Amino acid sequence: MEQNLENIRHSLAHLLAAAVLKKWPDTKLGIGPVIENGFYYDFQFTQPISDADLKDLEKQMRKFIGGKLAFTGKEMNAAELNKLYSDQPFKLDLIEEYAKDGRAMTSYRTGEIFEDLCRGGHIENTTEIDPDAFKLTKLAGAYWRGDEKNAQLTRIYGVAFENKEKLDAYITMLAEAEKRDHKKLGKEMGLFVFSSLVGPGFPLFLPKGEVIFRKLEEFMREEKEKLGYSFVRIPHVAKAELYSKSGHLGKYDAMMPLMTDNDGNKFAMKAMNCPHHFEIYNAQPHSYKDLPYRIAETTTVYRNEKSGEVSGLVRVKALTQDDTHHVVRHDQIESEIAVITDLMDRVYGTFGFTDYKIQISIRDPHHPEKYFGDNALWEKSEKILIDAVRKWGRRFVVEEGEAAFYGPKIDIMVKDSIGRTWQLTTVQLDFNQPENFDMSYTGEDGSKHRPAILHVAILGSVERFMGILIEHYAGHFPLWLSPVQARVIAVGEKFQDYGEKILAELKDVGLRAELAGSNETLGKRIRQAQVEKIPYVLVVGEEEATNGTVATKLRGADLGKLSVKDLVEQMQAEIKEKK
Amino acid sequence: MEQNLENIRHSLAHLLAAAVLKKWPDTKLGIGPVIENGFYYDFQFTQPISDADLKDLEKQMRKFIGGKLAFTGKEMNAAELNKLYSDQPFKLDLIEEYAKDGRAMTSYRTGEIFEDLCRGGHIENTTEIDPDAFKLTKLAGAYWRGDEKNAQLTRIYGVAFENKEKLDAYITMLAEAEKRDHKKLGKEMGLFVFSSLVGPGFPLFLPKGEVIFRKLEEFMREEKEKLGYSFVRIPHVAKAELYSKSGHLGKYDAMMPLMTDNDGNKFAMKAMNCPHHFEIYNAQPHSYKDLPYRIAETTTVYRNEKSGEVSGLVRVKALTQDDTHHVVRHDQIESEIAVITDLMDRVYGTFGFTDYKIQISIRDPHHPEKYFGDNALWEKSEKILIDAVRKWGRRFVVEEGEAAFYGPKIDIMVKDSIGRTWQLTTVQLDFNQPENFDMSYTGEDGSKHRPAILHVAILGSVERFMGILIEHYAGHFPLWLSPVQARVIAVGEKFQDYGEKILAELKDVGLRAELAGSNETLGKRIRQAQVEKIPYVLVVGEEEATNGTVATKLRGADLGKLSVKDLVEQMQAEIKEKK
Repeated sequence: MEQNLENIRHSLAHLLAAAVLKKWPDTKLGIGPVIENGFYYDFQFTQPISDADLKDLEKQMRKFIGGKLAFTGKEMNAAELNKLYSDQPFKLDLIEEYAKDGRAMTSYRTGEIFEDLCRGGHIENTTEIDPDAFKLTKLAGAYWRGDEKNAQLTRIYGVAFENKEKLDAYITMLAEAEKRDHKKLGKEMGLFVFSSLVGPGFPLFLPKGEVIFRKLEEFMREEKEKLGYSFVRIPHVAKAELYSKSGHLGKYDAMMPLMTDNDGNKFAMKAMNCPHHFEIYNAQPHSYKDLPYRIAETTTVYRNEKSGEVSGLVRVKALTQDDTHHVVRHDQIESEIAVITDLMDRVYGTFGFTDYKIQISIRDPHHPEKYFGDNALWEKSEKILIDAVRKWGRRFVVEEGEAAFYGPKIDIMVKDSIGRTWQLTTVQLDFNQPENFDMSYTGEDGSKHRPAILHVAILGSVERFMGILIEHYAGHFPLWLSPVQARVIAVGEKFQDYGEKILAELKDVGLRAELAGSNETLGKRIRQAQVEKIPYVLVVGEEEATNGTVATKLRGADLGKLSVKDLVEQMQAEIKEKK
Repeated sequence: MEQNLENIRHSLAHLLAAAVLKKWPDTKLGIGPVIENGFYYDFQFTQPISDADLKDLEKQMRKFIGGKLAFTGKEMNAAELNKLYSDQPFKLDLIEEYAKDGRAMTSYRTGEIFEDLCRGGHIENTTEIDPDAFKLTKLAGAYWRGDEKNAQLTRIYGVAFENKEKLDAYITMLAEAEKRDHKKLGKEMGLFVFSSLVGPGFPLFLPKGEVIFRKLEEFMREEKEKLGYSFVRIPHVAKAELYSKSGHLGKYDAMMPLMTDNDGNKFAMKAMNCPHHFEIYNAQPHSYKDLPYRIAETTTVYRNEKSGEVSGLVRVKALTQDDTHHVVRHDQIESEIAVITDLMDRVYGTFGFTDYKIQISIRDPHHPEKYFGDNALWEKSEKILIDAVRKWGRRFVVEEGEAAFYGPKIDIMVKDSIGRTWQLTTVQLDFNQPENFDMSYTGEDGSKHRPAILHVAILGSVERFMGILIEHYAGHFPLWLSPVQARVIAVGEKFQDYGEKILAELKDVGLRAELAGSNETLGKRIRQAQVEKIPYVLVVGEEEATNGTVATKLRGADLGKLSVKDLVEQMQAEIKEKK
């Protein structure tokens, strides 16, 4: 995010708190940080407030903005601050903690109207804020410091941009996103459901949703087969020892569902596929000529998420990854990353994702103890990733402290059709797991060498990717992904037989087609097909039955009367081109 | 099994015990039942014995047979028996138990040489035994009554048939089975491995094994899609409550891996798919016109087997079922079973399994408390299954006490290429789970009706089926299942390029082909391809490169020089016909 916009949002949080105190002077203040697209502030009110109050608060904030107030900060010690914030218990709590950590503390004033304990990051004067470019959006409950044992506070959310145009665009996007909500469409289109008996975070895919899921899986497989990937199949569990060896156990225990079997062994549902794939690599000898060896599998990993944290398909407790472990010689790392970025371009392009954001995640240099492996290897790995992305020719940012414990990674985020970005592919470079698993290949020199690993999932989680696609397409899937590709509708009962004949011809060539029942009006059946977002609607009556044709509509557009042969050819071409 | 052969085997067990007592009079006797193909007897010896002793024991048994000894039984009370077997502690143990249960007890004499506590089932005289038609095969350890807390005994196994010809055939079959052992071939052919870190009972499928697994899965899916089955996708876990509702929890707890998640909920890895599929059925309304509704999925269930009980692919702890739940109206049950038996005939026929054994498993009439649902429904269900198999026109046996707790079932066993039988398909009829899950459909009369369920898995466990197929084909898979369908071998380094060209052409049309490296002799490379059981071996050299042909061998048979076009056509036809 641009620094100035961040400062505007942070300053608006202060103005919100000032407006709240002006209206209800006894309110206790929590914290007010910047978030994506805006800000929030947490308050402990003496009386309940409602959405209706937000308009008043906005009006007051605009008045403050018109007052051309300056933001000025000043370093202070704990004693001074304790005195200043003596009636604000949550601020006193923070002062105590910061003082214990020996952190420098500052207090920021907004003109003469408000003062807040704050580490800074403000505009200089409220004149920098466009008073029509922000909006308070909603209320929510929140615990002080996120801990349910603490006091419950009320959070007021706001959004803010540089100008009104951007705010309006954002609000339009939100409305559009709500219409496209994959949980809503998923239900309407009969794609997936949740069951309270199966549990939250575990979607059940209905027949129509299963088609989309499987087509995505098959698509990735076909693309990977063209590149000579090797596919394997592993169980969804392993002895806990496997994850001790990989180092995951001890770092991710809370995430891994663990159990004890009848032999008294500790078992884990797999939280990641790498150690299984390494065992597969190690089961057979390998020569330098076999590398890169790409071990691919679309398989499910499990996460002990809390039920409150799961959401539709985008955050689930059992997620299916299109995973690959590329076992490579050290001299093959860069060329292998080029193979991966090529594949990524091709896959993303298929779905119309052309605008990427790229982040290279490296170590937190202040906490080397959080990572496996020595310094030189880390530096080498980080440099290789940065060089590879440069060669790819795309812009990127570098984030410290976001690497996996065994190596740095590249994260790729794509922009969907309504402008939201989603993190999809991750490429991790790993010199450490080959050590843990004593992986090797025989070099041209006849002796053993250590390979490196690239961990890659292109779609990421297939469940999540499917959720994103539902919203990206607003349910109007391209033909190759559509659960029902065509619906035949007979204008009346006596043409139902001809409808059956057309249906059989479409099914015979592998198209996913249905015949509408005859107990509704023609108009209602056509509208129903549109509601279900079925691409091809084929109406048949007297004339069509006589001439052996179908009156064809493709996504509402009239294609006229086509012979079945021409229709099939057109549909098959469209499927092949994945458009 | 024929009753007389069973009596011969049981009588041989007595003769074995008699021979042991003659040689080592202080031996304590356990039990000596009939098993498949033969019998065993458990002994507590005062000194260790070895395989070398088995010949002597056989010789003694033959002497007894020559003595024309009669078997005669007599009912006795506990006091009499305790006296008779006062020096046989294990027999005293049995007498105590039988007396407690109030069971009638008999003691059987063999001529004047031996007497044993036994419920009968003997031939009248040893003249009925062919002395050349039995063999003592091996020694093994066993615990008294199978409990590891009891004394350890030595078990002597024997096989026995009506005549020497049958015994010889059986021994030949055993030797053949050993050669075909899927664990051995699976390793040699690089199909699957086990990892001590992942755990016993959890196979890891290598790329070549994954091909076979997936082709089996695809084959079943294609066959089911032709019949209009609906495919779904469910998670591998569920809240324990789901299995309380289905009644599995409380009956199969020991089999179900259970764990607790971060919300404190009890979770189970799924031990069966039915309750998930019922939740899918219930997620949408259904009309009588939608039935039969066939909910299909190839998915994995988990069993808490002890590690000592798992074996290769045929007994695993995570097994993948080609499962279907047929939701049917009561008037559709018989026609639906006909659809299933048709599919079964087609699937089995594809693998050359044409000889079936059919068992209909009904309730144990003495323990109605072990089953859900009322008597009338059980009687109706059992009759429906028997009638359906009669209509199928195949012979069957009825077994009491082998039904599932919610309904009776049909089990189908097939004979493989070396005469062994394997249980594959199970068809269960179930009126009870629709009650538990309150499943319904709207009838023609507009009111709610209760459907019935048929639970069906045709291959059963795909892992186990694959293990059976490896042995059935002795690793020589038909072309459509072969992991590598063709290997191109260039006669020398300078034809390697032409080999690459051929390889690319085969791969382009989707054939699974490889090119042999050039660092071995031609003969060695051809032999290697045979060892790996690759169906097509394509040798190329000067002449082939000039004429654009390949010298083709199919499973060792010379097909001469073929153009690539003809070769591809032949291979594709063979794949399509699944031969």
